[in-house]
Amino acid sequence: MTDMKQAAKSLVLAFGKAWEARDPDAVVAMLSESVVHQNIPIPPIHGREAVRRFITPNLRAVQEMRWVFKAIEADDSGRVVLTERVDSFIYENGRVDIPLMGIFEIADGLITAWREYADIGQFVRDMQAIGRAPGPGLVQ
Amino acid sequence: MTDMKQAAKSLVLAFGKAWEARDPDAVVAMLSESVVHQNIPIPPIHGREAVRRFITPNLRAVQEMRWVFKAIEADDSGRVVLTERVDSFIYENGRVDIPLMGIFEIADGLITAWREYADIGQFVRDMQAIGRAPGPGLVQ
Repeated sequence: MTDMKQAAKSLVLAFGKAWEARDPDAVVAMLSESVVHQNIPIPPIHGREAVRRFITPNLRAVQEMRWVFKAIEADDSGRVVLTERVDSFIYENGRVDIPLMGIFEIADGLITAWREYADIGQFVRDMQAIGRAPGPGLVQ
Repeated sequence: MTDMKQAAKSLVLAFGKAWEARDPDAVVAMLSESVVHQNIPIPPIHGREAVRRFITPNLRAVQEMRWVFKAIEADDSGRVVLTERVDSFIYENGRVDIPLMGIFEIADGLITAWREYADIGQFVRDMQAIGRAPGPGLVQ
């Protein structure tokens, strides 16, 4: 495995750890200033600060957050990382586990693009089932 | 790149070509007899023949089918291939382009598991917009 490839995978794994730490500063520190984040097919969010505004209320609302990686692979140049995961949003009164795949584009040690693919309808129904209205930071 | 890795990626690219050829025999020939196919979060389909029954009506209904790979990576052992794609279902009166990610598990040169992640609600709405009721082979 090349060093660049390993560095890219390590960055994405650390990004998941920052989510689990519910630390918005640590999350956005791994994003480029002009990052493009999209939960397909919802329109994208442009820029590190816009991502910070989206994620902060949700990281504060959740009691525990998990990113469980089922698969992670990168190209040899370390420019792209593809993942299969189950992300868990755990609250006092219940939890939502969302199966998804995500892709990360990387340059100069930062994430420049980040796209997630999941069934958003299922996610919203699961959140509603535990009395949560998914905020704009989760489903925009 | 290892031979096993390249073989795995080539298999998945050929699988896309079989879809584009709208050839159910060619598609299922790349699946193991006990393949598990799932369009997350819909329950999985078990077995090659069950997959054949699901896909055949849809491959016949569509005038043209495209699998455009935006990204494809495999592990060095060639056991797993992760993809980001746009799949297009093209009919006389319109088309639906579905952005998705898919993961393929491979053993002995055949696909043993195949999971797709997309927003199924958006896909159904797009199909309805061109007067198509998505069949069980597309959204089960």
